[in-house]
Amino acid sequence: MPALSSVSHAATAAAAISRLPPPPADTLDGDVRALYEANHRENWIAALSVNGATAKRFAGYFGSLFATEGSLLPLQERELIAVIVSAINGCGLCEIHHVNALASALGDDEKARRIALDPHLAPLSAREQALVDLATSVTTDPKSVEPRAFDRLRAVGLSDAEILEAIETASWFNHTNRIFISLGVWPDEKYFDR
Amino acid sequence: MPALSSVSHAATAAAAISRLPPPPADTLDGDVRALYEANHRENWIAALSVNGATAKRFAGYFGSLFATEGSLLPLQERELIAVIVSAINGCGLCEIHHVNALASALGDDEKARRIALDPHLAPLSAREQALVDLATSVTTDPKSVEPRAFDRLRAVGLSDAEILEAIETASWFNHTNRIFISLGVWPDEKYFDR
Amino acid sequence: MPALSSVSHAATAAAAISRLPPPPADTLDGDVRALYEANHRENWIAALSVNGATAKRFAGYFGSLFATEGSLLPLQERELIAVIVSAINGCGLCEIHHVNALASALGDDEKARRIALDPHLAPLSAREQALVDLATSVTTDPKSVEPRAFDRLRAVGLSDAEILEAIETASWFNHTNRIFISLGVWPDEKYFDR
Amino acid sequence: MPALSSVSHAATAAAAISRLPPPPADTLDGDVRALYEANHRENWIAALSVNGATAKRFAGYFGSLFATEGSLLPLQERELIAVIVSAINGCGLCEIHHVNALASALGDDEKARRIALDPHLAPLSAREQALVDLATSVTTDPKSVEPRAFDRLRAVGLSDAEILEAIETASWFNHTNRIFISLGVWPDEKYFDR
Amino acid sequence: MPALSSVSHAATAAAAISRLPPPPADTLDGDVRALYEANHRENWIAALSVNGATAKRFAGYFGSLFATEGSLLPLQERELIAVIVSAINGCGLCEIHHVNALASALGDDEKARRIALDPHLAPLSAREQALVDLATSVTTDPKSVEPRAFDRLRAVGLSDAEILEAIETASWFNHTNRIFISLGVWPDEKYFDR
Amino acid sequence: MPALSSVSHAATAAAAISRLPPPPADTLDGDVRALYEANHRENWIAALSVNGATAKRFAGYFGSLFATEGSLLPLQERELIAVIVSAINGCGLCEIHHVNALASALGDDEKARRIALDPHLAPLSAREQALVDLATSVTTDPKSVEPRAFDRLRAVGLSDAEILEAIETASWFNHTNRIFISLGVWPDEKYFDR
Repeated sequence: MPALSSVSHAATAAAAISRLPPPPADTLDGDVRALYEANHRENWIAALSVNGATAKRFAGYFGSLFATEGSLLPLQERELIAVIVSAINGCGLCEIHHVNALASALGDDEKARRIALDPHLAPLSAREQALVDLATSVTTDPKSVEPRAFDRLRAVGLSDAEILEAIETASWFNHTNRIFISLGVWPDEKYFDR
Repeated sequence: MPALSSVSHAATAAAAISRLPPPPADTLDGDVRALYEANHRENWIAALSVNGATAKRFAGYFGSLFATEGSLLPLQERELIAVIVSAINGCGLCEIHHVNALASALGDDEKARRIALDPHLAPLSAREQALVDLATSVTTDPKSVEPRAFDRLRAVGLSDAEILEAIETASWFNHTNRIFISLGVWPDEKYFDR
Repeated sequence: MPALSSVSHAATAAAAISRLPPPPADTLDGDVRALYEANHRENWIAALSVNGATAKRFAGYFGSLFATEGSLLPLQERELIAVIVSAINGCGLCEIHHVNALASALGDDEKARRIALDPHLAPLSAREQALVDLATSVTTDPKSVEPRAFDRLRAVGLSDAEILEAIETASWFNHTNRIFISLGVWPDEKYFDR
Repeated sequence: MPALSSVSHAATAAAAISRLPPPPADTLDGDVRALYEANHRENWIAALSVNGATAKRFAGYFGSLFATEGSLLPLQERELIAVIVSAINGCGLCEIHHVNALASALGDDEKARRIALDPHLAPLSAREQALVDLATSVTTDPKSVEPRAFDRLRAVGLSDAEILEAIETASWFNHTNRIFISLGVWPDEKYFDR
Repeated sequence: MPALSSVSHAATAAAAISRLPPPPADTLDGDVRALYEANHRENWIAALSVNGATAKRFAGYFGSLFATEGSLLPLQERELIAVIVSAINGCGLCEIHHVNALASALGDDEKARRIALDPHLAPLSAREQALVDLATSVTTDPKSVEPRAFDRLRAVGLSDAEILEAIETASWFNHTNRIFISLGVWPDEKYFDR
Repeated sequence: MPALSSVSHAATAAAAISRLPPPPADTLDGDVRALYEANHRENWIAALSVNGATAKRFAGYFGSLFATEGSLLPLQERELIAVIVSAINGCGLCEIHHVNALASALGDDEKARRIALDPHLAPLSAREQALVDLATSVTTDPKSVEPRAFDRLRAVGLSDAEILEAIETASWFNHTNRIFISLGVWPDEKYFDR
């Protein structure tokens, strides 16, 4: 083990980007190649580039849902949902990616890490707590989502369109988590720098 | 109950399209209205129209993934995955929608209905069985997907890009199922005509 | 797969009646043979005829519990319970058999199919909903059945003897489902005709 | 609590025979009354007598399946299955009733009690182990019963008719356990005498 | 099997004390040997003596927590918690050991055995019921323990220090149960004498 | 929420040390006070000080099991087990405490954080993987620990005494996790500094 821990993580991780080996970057079609570069050659986009149509569909949907402008819920609330769902499903790649993004959106690293550990251990507003509970129900037992859950969300200020965006966001990570868990995609080293 | 069973289903179902009441069609933005019409004013698109951006993202992704042309796996295999995942998650709306579509793609109503009941009770090829098993694992325990699952899929003829499309399809229905279960969207009456 | 889907379902299904191969009809004892014929040589009675005593016990109990006359609850309510329990347990043979029977008892195919898909998606009376909830609890977590469940059933008009019949019916399908799932008995082709 | 532990168990238990109060013995129909007496006025038959038809169906099936003569498997093997299933389902009434019966059938109290605690902690023959594993699968996940389970049972000497009797017995206790758990029937004091 | 049931249990059990074979008693270090003798050479202490430090840590903690003097809760309440947790986790060794101890502490064999079968089937005081519910939650879903659980315990007379002792006791058996289940330690024959 | 995120975490967390409010430090008995100071007045020891005997038992056991000297397994392997079990059980307090300790023991922050996210996403030696698998089984399903698990551990170099220490360590965190989850103890702010 001493020997192993001196092994370069980069080398090990490179071999483990995905169980379906990504194609060399220079063989990618133009628009897939552009996506790959625009996403900083991160492991997740490399893994998706095995199927260019998948990469484009995925990046298009995600780009729209997580755009800084144009969505209804503040970015920090969409990132909150992303972290909760990814932690429940055990997608380490998605969890660390969105913990970092949540920390940036909140301007509060400690709170973001507390939420990822367990939302019981973080100082949440009533609105944040209602979103956490919705994301949890949508993920673990969507049939348990009942009309009163919507009433609670309305009571903390969400419109019906915002409630649907919250449901969509929670459901979306049940999609993304499963892709990256199934492929076994490793988080990039840089995710651990902060 | 005799009284109740004489109640028009249409009336009851109309009230129950979704727990988030859809807006009147004539208030929809132009492109959302166009989607609503193009999808025959079915309940699912009505339910999504509460948030126009959601409706557009959803319909765009789904339209690309289930296009007759341009995908890698035959439509009947994508529909097979849709039925398996929807049945596991208990999304009745998605299940009956895609059982009907699978029946059309296969040209075999009985086989499609057998698959929805329980894939053990349907005559499956080795390739179909491998896709059923992949879709089941991706849905219920994605960490159990291991490299040998991919080897098995390759052995029945799938390329890596096709394997990724299969994973994407199974994961996608974990998204759609959760949206429609959370909203409580009822299947349209016409789904039961066949 | 094109080749496979042209294979006669009859041939495939014949080989798959049960994992314990039924004996030839003409080797059955007189009273078991009579049961076999009376039940139209369906797969379930063929599968049970491997042990004549089992076939007789099973058919005797079921025949009494589901008799048109002599039971306390209307047939449509006993069939409702049968469908709910079989769908939860995933017994496709029992589910389709009793969906057909529920449709006949209700005179409403669509409602029966909605109930099988998900009882949230069907127009249920308060009494039907209370029976659905009882059947669900008895099946998935009988320790969760509490005195107030009985009070609720009394409030929608059931006597104590009827409540016991409802519990018995739900419990019975936990028996029958397990026999037919364990044996892997396929639904007969004719079940798919309607 | 000191006060409480001096309360007569008889008095407490009498009130708790079942959540559906049994009718007075002298109001029972003749044949139900006869069953009640023949079964020594035990709590289980009192609880079932709320619905005479239920009591008769239940006692008839159980009497046939657990008759000393006429079944295929030795009584100790049917009692072994009864104990395993009842312990898994947590039916205390059925567990202690059949632990006592298993002890008598085996002529070995310690072994019967070890089996009820955990079959890993009892000296089991290969045949007993195969039956324990079958009963466990039938109860907890019947879809996991596969053809090789039957091959294993054949290898330890069971005929197909005996395998079906074993499946029937395991399934039957999934019926009885649910009835008595749902009713909350207490074990009679005398069950604790040995 | 007749042959097997005549085999001496002593011989079988000796071979099965633990999956990690205990060292001969005369090779034990002085203080470990002393613990082994003080605990009557029972299987559990033999199993732990494979690692002397483990045996000493375990016996020290357990001896303090279950001392007749010096704890806050009456011994019968600590034994009640031990039985509930061990039954949930399925540690047969711990269950029978502590059922016997609970019977002694209560002076009531029947009540102790009823509690082990299912606490629904035993006459419990409100205080006992609150402890049973706490021990169940701590074991199966500790995140479900909420402030109101503590209020309920206070209402039946527990101080905060006693509540913590109850939590500690329930948690402790989640430790001990896992050790003895993992090692497969058999209960000693003498545990079945009463 | 902007308002809330400007609230001092220190103030919020102070109120949330534990659901059972710790006594003021100057009311603690001498040896409990000494433990409190020796452990840097961290939340966990404050929470345990509600019951002095609990605090002493807990700190004594933990101090022995995690001593730098005197244990058999290297500290980094005991910390590895601590992280795996705490992450499975969802004890955020224990997880971050031991991720930090694992990082120190390994001299590798990134690897420690990868292990906490998901051990599939970290470069593990065969010996580390075997310990991860053991800790997982002991925590989630100890009955699934079978003799071959021990053979695998022996094959990567563990003695039987070391295997028992590994089992003890995994089991111990099933104790500690439940105490701190039940009490709702928040991680100290300083845990997030690194």
